[in-house]
Amino acid sequence: MALAYDGAIQNLIDAFSRLPGIGPKGAQRIAFYLLGAPDAEAQGLADAISEVKSKVRFCEICGNVCETSPCPVCQDPRRDRGVICVVEEPKDVMSIERTREFRGLYHVLGGAINPMANVGPADLRIPQLLERLGDGSVTEVILALDPNIEGEATTRYLAQLLGPLGVKVTRLASGLPVGSDLEYADEITLGRALSGRQAA
Amino acid sequence: MALAYDGAIQNLIDAFSRLPGIGPKGAQRIAFYLLGAPDAEAQGLADAISEVKSKVRFCEICGNVCETSPCPVCQDPRRDRGVICVVEEPKDVMSIERTREFRGLYHVLGGAINPMANVGPADLRIPQLLERLGDGSVTEVILALDPNIEGEATTRYLAQLLGPLGVKVTRLASGLPVGSDLEYADEITLGRALSGRQAA
Repeated sequence: MALAYDGAIQNLIDAFSRLPGIGPKGAQRIAFYLLGAPDAEAQGLADAISEVKSKVRFCEICGNVCETSPCPVCQDPRRDRGVICVVEEPKDVMSIERTREFRGLYHVLGGAINPMANVGPADLRIPQLLERLGDGSVTEVILALDPNIEGEATTRYLAQLLGPLGVKVTRLASGLPVGSDLEYADEITLGRALSGRQAA
Repeated sequence: MALAYDGAIQNLIDAFSRLPGIGPKGAQRIAFYLLGAPDAEAQGLADAISEVKSKVRFCEICGNVCETSPCPVCQDPRRDRGVICVVEEPKDVMSIERTREFRGLYHVLGGAINPMANVGPADLRIPQLLERLGDGSVTEVILALDPNIEGEATTRYLAQLLGPLGVKVTRLASGLPVGSDLEYADEITLGRALSGRQAA
């Protein structure tokens, strides 16, 4: 038996180990869990993986993941077609949907400018964004990129690019997270909260 | 789109969320990772799950998981057939194999006595262990159960059961983990380390 499991179990542990956030111990735990789980549950997981690869595509308009293209948001007549919220990844769409504060449309860039990872503006869905702004029906573009170096660089790049088009370009507010302690805020966040202070 | 993803993605997130050690955020991260991964990698994971359920069985002798029964350890002529190491779960076999300190055979109980979870001696592979001891060829049984309440109860039960059979019954040493600090040892572990002290 040596120091690895028999073929199928070790294959499964290896396959799970490659997933983000799962280490070798976690992968082993999952493999033995599946081994003891009802066949239907294990097969359900296997089918869900196959299905997501065969069924899910990207919306031809906003670039979000969906099973129909255009996606349900782009098709929804109740959404405000005058506002586009630009995000990095499909999961960011869900984060903003969960706030229930936004009723406009989305545009998924597919990442952020990151010279270290060789991701430049040409690798993002920026031409598609410009095309959507072409007919003048969009009045505001909200840049909702991650508040890190790459997101910041992308925000600045897009603000410069979109500024001359006459569309209003806004970005998410930076400041203290709700429920946090002032004492534990880092100085950059606290500085942003100060410079962005509002009437109380 | 409401507040959940489209069918196939949400199915996959839900399926991963049910696995041990994976929360909703981790499941979402994995789902999007698989969505972006090469088809072969995603399908490989799906196949590994199906395969483990169809191929893996339990060794008729020791109860360990394997693809052939008897398992490679039970079949290996180089293993010492006079010593059986009793463990709770198949993964414990791998933990002991990794020490490279043990060359005997194993016996997997399939759990430990746990009245709270309605697991009694009758739910464990104890009759199969007694049968293996029947022909007198086994001279030592090492009880290698988890050092917790359930493992302790099972160790005591087995020690009483096997004692009259004339076989030598031993248990793993309790004491300080190698590389740990005496300062941080709990009092029970430190007490065990003291009472089990050996000549230096």
